[in-house]
Amino acid sequence: MQDRDTLRRVAATQRLRAAVAGSTGYIGMQCVTLLAAHPNVDLVTVLGHSTAGRRYSEAVPGSDVDIVVGDGLDLGDVDIVFAALPHTVAAGQAQAWLDAGAVVVDMSADFRLADAAEYQRWYGVTHPAPQLFERAVYGLVEMERDRLRSSDLIAAPGCYPTAALIATLPALRSGLVEPRIIVDAKSGVSGAGRSPSLSVHFAEANESVRAYGVAGHRHRAEMLSQMRPASAADVSLTFVPHLVPMTRGLLATVYMRIGDGVDAEAVTALYRDLCCREPFLRYDESPPPTKSVLGSNVAALNCTVQGDTLVVTAAIDNLVKGAAGQGIQAMNVRFGFAETAGLATASAWP
Amino acid sequence: MQDRDTLRRVAATQRLRAAVAGSTGYIGMQCVTLLAAHPNVDLVTVLGHSTAGRRYSEAVPGSDVDIVVGDGLDLGDVDIVFAALPHTVAAGQAQAWLDAGAVVVDMSADFRLADAAEYQRWYGVTHPAPQLFERAVYGLVEMERDRLRSSDLIAAPGCYPTAALIATLPALRSGLVEPRIIVDAKSGVSGAGRSPSLSVHFAEANESVRAYGVAGHRHRAEMLSQMRPASAADVSLTFVPHLVPMTRGLLATVYMRIGDGVDAEAVTALYRDLCCREPFLRYDESPPPTKSVLGSNVAALNCTVQGDTLVVTAAIDNLVKGAAGQGIQAMNVRFGFAETAGLATASAWP
Amino acid sequence: MQDRDTLRRVAATQRLRAAVAGSTGYIGMQCVTLLAAHPNVDLVTVLGHSTAGRRYSEAVPGSDVDIVVGDGLDLGDVDIVFAALPHTVAAGQAQAWLDAGAVVVDMSADFRLADAAEYQRWYGVTHPAPQLFERAVYGLVEMERDRLRSSDLIAAPGCYPTAALIATLPALRSGLVEPRIIVDAKSGVSGAGRSPSLSVHFAEANESVRAYGVAGHRHRAEMLSQMRPASAADVSLTFVPHLVPMTRGLLATVYMRIGDGVDAEAVTALYRDLCCREPFLRYDESPPPTKSVLGSNVAALNCTVQGDTLVVTAAIDNLVKGAAGQGIQAMNVRFGFAETAGLATASAWP
Amino acid sequence: MQDRDTLRRVAATQRLRAAVAGSTGYIGMQCVTLLAAHPNVDLVTVLGHSTAGRRYSEAVPGSDVDIVVGDGLDLGDVDIVFAALPHTVAAGQAQAWLDAGAVVVDMSADFRLADAAEYQRWYGVTHPAPQLFERAVYGLVEMERDRLRSSDLIAAPGCYPTAALIATLPALRSGLVEPRIIVDAKSGVSGAGRSPSLSVHFAEANESVRAYGVAGHRHRAEMLSQMRPASAADVSLTFVPHLVPMTRGLLATVYMRIGDGVDAEAVTALYRDLCCREPFLRYDESPPPTKSVLGSNVAALNCTVQGDTLVVTAAIDNLVKGAAGQGIQAMNVRFGFAETAGLATASAWP
Repeated sequence: MQDRDTLRRVAATQRLRAAVAGSTGYIGMQCVTLLAAHPNVDLVTVLGHSTAGRRYSEAVPGSDVDIVVGDGLDLGDVDIVFAALPHTVAAGQAQAWLDAGAVVVDMSADFRLADAAEYQRWYGVTHPAPQLFERAVYGLVEMERDRLRSSDLIAAPGCYPTAALIATLPALRSGLVEPRIIVDAKSGVSGAGRSPSLSVHFAEANESVRAYGVAGHRHRAEMLSQMRPASAADVSLTFVPHLVPMTRGLLATVYMRIGDGVDAEAVTALYRDLCCREPFLRYDESPPPTKSVLGSNVAALNCTVQGDTLVVTAAIDNLVKGAAGQGIQAMNVRFGFAETAGLATASAWP
Repeated sequence: MQDRDTLRRVAATQRLRAAVAGSTGYIGMQCVTLLAAHPNVDLVTVLGHSTAGRRYSEAVPGSDVDIVVGDGLDLGDVDIVFAALPHTVAAGQAQAWLDAGAVVVDMSADFRLADAAEYQRWYGVTHPAPQLFERAVYGLVEMERDRLRSSDLIAAPGCYPTAALIATLPALRSGLVEPRIIVDAKSGVSGAGRSPSLSVHFAEANESVRAYGVAGHRHRAEMLSQMRPASAADVSLTFVPHLVPMTRGLLATVYMRIGDGVDAEAVTALYRDLCCREPFLRYDESPPPTKSVLGSNVAALNCTVQGDTLVVTAAIDNLVKGAAGQGIQAMNVRFGFAETAGLATASAWP
Repeated sequence: MQDRDTLRRVAATQRLRAAVAGSTGYIGMQCVTLLAAHPNVDLVTVLGHSTAGRRYSEAVPGSDVDIVVGDGLDLGDVDIVFAALPHTVAAGQAQAWLDAGAVVVDMSADFRLADAAEYQRWYGVTHPAPQLFERAVYGLVEMERDRLRSSDLIAAPGCYPTAALIATLPALRSGLVEPRIIVDAKSGVSGAGRSPSLSVHFAEANESVRAYGVAGHRHRAEMLSQMRPASAADVSLTFVPHLVPMTRGLLATVYMRIGDGVDAEAVTALYRDLCCREPFLRYDESPPPTKSVLGSNVAALNCTVQGDTLVVTAAIDNLVKGAAGQGIQAMNVRFGFAETAGLATASAWP
Repeated sequence: MQDRDTLRRVAATQRLRAAVAGSTGYIGMQCVTLLAAHPNVDLVTVLGHSTAGRRYSEAVPGSDVDIVVGDGLDLGDVDIVFAALPHTVAAGQAQAWLDAGAVVVDMSADFRLADAAEYQRWYGVTHPAPQLFERAVYGLVEMERDRLRSSDLIAAPGCYPTAALIATLPALRSGLVEPRIIVDAKSGVSGAGRSPSLSVHFAEANESVRAYGVAGHRHRAEMLSQMRPASAADVSLTFVPHLVPMTRGLLATVYMRIGDGVDAEAVTALYRDLCCREPFLRYDESPPPTKSVLGSNVAALNCTVQGDTLVVTAAIDNLVKGAAGQGIQAMNVRFGFAETAGLATASAWP
């Protein structure tokens, strides 16, 4: 295992050797696309069980990455691994990867919750590596930038939590809103992954919108684990995700009651100021359409007041800012690269 | 003007002569399609300024209605008129139509609000016929069936209010929920009408979802005018509509806090019972996809509890139950026809 | 087995008892929807392996058919069965159904080709009931109306052949075009059926168009078996189907060279005249959009000449005129009902 | 006017100053997006009548280009201008731009046809600058690379011709196919531009496919002007474009009869070989879905033989390889940059 500071210093001037495990699911594919074009990265290993042995460019439509897909979880000699695997798989392997000197960016939910008990409650399985929870840093860069600079195990946030947290944490932390939050979120169908099933069958999902997971969705626990430390008072959260007939894009519409006597402009100003400082946050004067962030790592925000309620809308590309892009943004911070390296800050309309 | 009771008695055994004014907008087209196939109706007049003089079947794709489109607002000898016109137009003509003995089903917002002052506040114009407000009956059949039996001026509800009110009034009337309501609604693009503009341009609206009208939408006033009488306490309503990339379909996701000490099952039971009694309400055990009501006059409902919050989802076809179908349902009640005559209670999947 | 003439005479004045086998695939669903609303039919049996034992209205979104789904292939006492089953299944059962006195409308390819040898060539299996080929009548009503009046075994055409044959047979039979035909067809995704797979996964099929089956598609053999008898000379046919990101709708664009010295207007007139005579054919002055026939049993046609080439476009709803609706149209002819009974001749725009 | 060789030599090591005229239409937007991220370009001027005076990033959703939009056609001091203007506008201004030392990449049809007479025939107006035809080079890089190295006036090909010509010229030039060509093309709706109209209204275009321009489309003339010189014999071309419900993407399905006695493999090999040599051509073993090229400058090709007919399918992103990307590819060639500079050779799936 290399000395961590050495690794980091070296990396900023050199190129990282990177691997993607689970490279033929939608999040893995997006990791591969972005890493292959990243100016500071050599993508050297792609792993994928179902396509092992084939050239990546033949296995994934539109790709020009000409590497043979490997099987198993052996990375070879790499500096960083992006793990886009079903839950528990990366957790079971993370210690070995860390011991071999790799920084681990886990795209699954394995290290997003507070601890192993919470994990077991929501995922119904014993966590394979509870000792790693204290080492993991939640990869929402805008909120955890400092801790990420020295992290080796990064838990990339889920797509819904990314949008919901960016939309709520500024207000929650300010204490200017009541900590009773409703998040009504709308996601494109790619958020459900690449495994065929009736619910994502074209003819069933097209020309239709529906709510799901109303009784309780795992991403609500992830949101709460970040919201609670941000609020002095108890947080109440209602979260309802919806499936919308589009491939990519996620919109969170968040409802928070403005505190008594609070000037609504003061709350809105928090978001405007944050967006000014952050390279991937954009404040729009009207509610952002999800199309305006597709392909980019941008989260676009708008605050509008209706009566005593603050309505924050936050739009992201669920596979970029909501997954792979955010992981790469965290990598950029971790290794001292330009934070925007290899990531788009603009989207091509239409 | 015919004697009203005579008209009604006669109509139940004979066929009505019907007209559609504004017949080449989306709501007008749906009125024409449904009336042309209605077992108790002869569609004799279709009016439309932009296509006047052409055969309707040539002006509207897919139609087989072989009538020449008329200009102006002169109906000829009809028993009922469906007015799908820009606001203020039908209001300006309604008295003349009523005087000529026609029942008026107005698809615009002209008679939906409480009075002319409220109308002026939201639409920014003086109401052309304030004296008719007391004569108008709000055409949400499930809530106003008795008054509709003797009405001559029916204000067909807006698409958003239809879904929102069916989803909220049962709980509000029961007093089992707090009258603090959030309605997050998602509509297909046909709800914006047939006039081309950038916001409904295919390449702009496709593959995108966005909120609009957050600072204040006219349909909120319409909802409140029906919610207030239904609640003993003051009603607070937050309403945010969204545009979703599909042609038809509207989903309202409604959030209401269940009262302290109230059994959530008791609230849900109200909706199940109502759906059992009503020919066009359907209770689904999981949140209804909008596709499951397309082309039908059905509103599909689900209630799911998350923590202390009741989440009601209501799905309709915005052009049928949310407009033309509801108007015809009201006509059926008014003239003593079978309430389901000429309306579908099922949808063809997919 | 009832006497056939008796059955037919009785049926015209009474109601048919009908069954649908394979009722929870897309074609079976459309059969159920249409039969449930047919004025001369009582739908008494629905069979479906995967949903057996459940109420149909619970198994299929949006349906209000309140019958318990049966398993197996036993129909009970019915006058007609619509078989929407995988190929070879209906063929294996057809004799038994016929012996029990039922008219069989087979929605599969089992009886569409000329004989068992041709079937084996294209489907790679031995035909289970070769003796029935001579009894089967191809259910393209516009071309086979007379033979259908006395048929007991009706082979409902495939969706691509329906559009392609309506677009080509009039010209081919006239001898005014060269029998060298190119059919470039575009289908909505529901044509691929309800079984989930990667190629019909929403995120893969959405926002994309592609050709498939270019080297040879089974529907080409079906087309040829009908085109050959229609032409005095040898027929050459190139057929390429495409998948388009929409749920329903099928457009065939057909290219035929006009014969030397032939007046193009004379060819076009054939199509206009045919459309005047046929209740479900519509001639449009410009190429029909598929949306203009959705939900109806109409095939809309246009002929336009470009240079020496006649371009015929034919639009259908693949699940109605391209499948279930056409089967019911054949049933109407077979039993002497009004040919349009239970079928829409118009579509609701948009 | 600078000396051309000097300009070119300098540019290869320095950065170009670029302008986009017509920057808020879809093609202009795509030019801006690509040029703003191009490693050898400084985008200094964006012109657009309807948004003049606003910051570009406020006028165009998702853009981060922070330049004030200018009005008129005055470019300032630039080395190259991309003109995405209505036809005749760029032609009227081109001489002035050339005189001021700018290389002109015209995205309109003004310089694509053979001469001013042909232009007048198809566009119905007198060409404003007939003297420039001999100076213009058709910007289909794969076919005109050498001439482009010294061109100052580049006519970027239309979207349909790009796909159709890449799919046909290799075979035509070889003489191995008969010069009787059918091009059946399918385009996403963005190809129709950004001006709202009923035909591109979401609710009209969604869930529908239709042919248009069957009697004669201007792009046919453009195709023929390139095909004729490629064939020893007379060329016959039938071209039918279709509108498909997707934002981007264009598929050309091309039918050509293989010459008597010709080995089909020999024809296919021409395409495989060409794709091996060209950085933006990709040969797929099965027909390419348009989604596999979205956002990239790639044209993906497949050849499949059906009977005696060669079916070539070619997929492009209509706004990239079919417009802006191709213009930038030509610029790269013209100024000696890496041909792939600023252009994607891969697409992010899904």
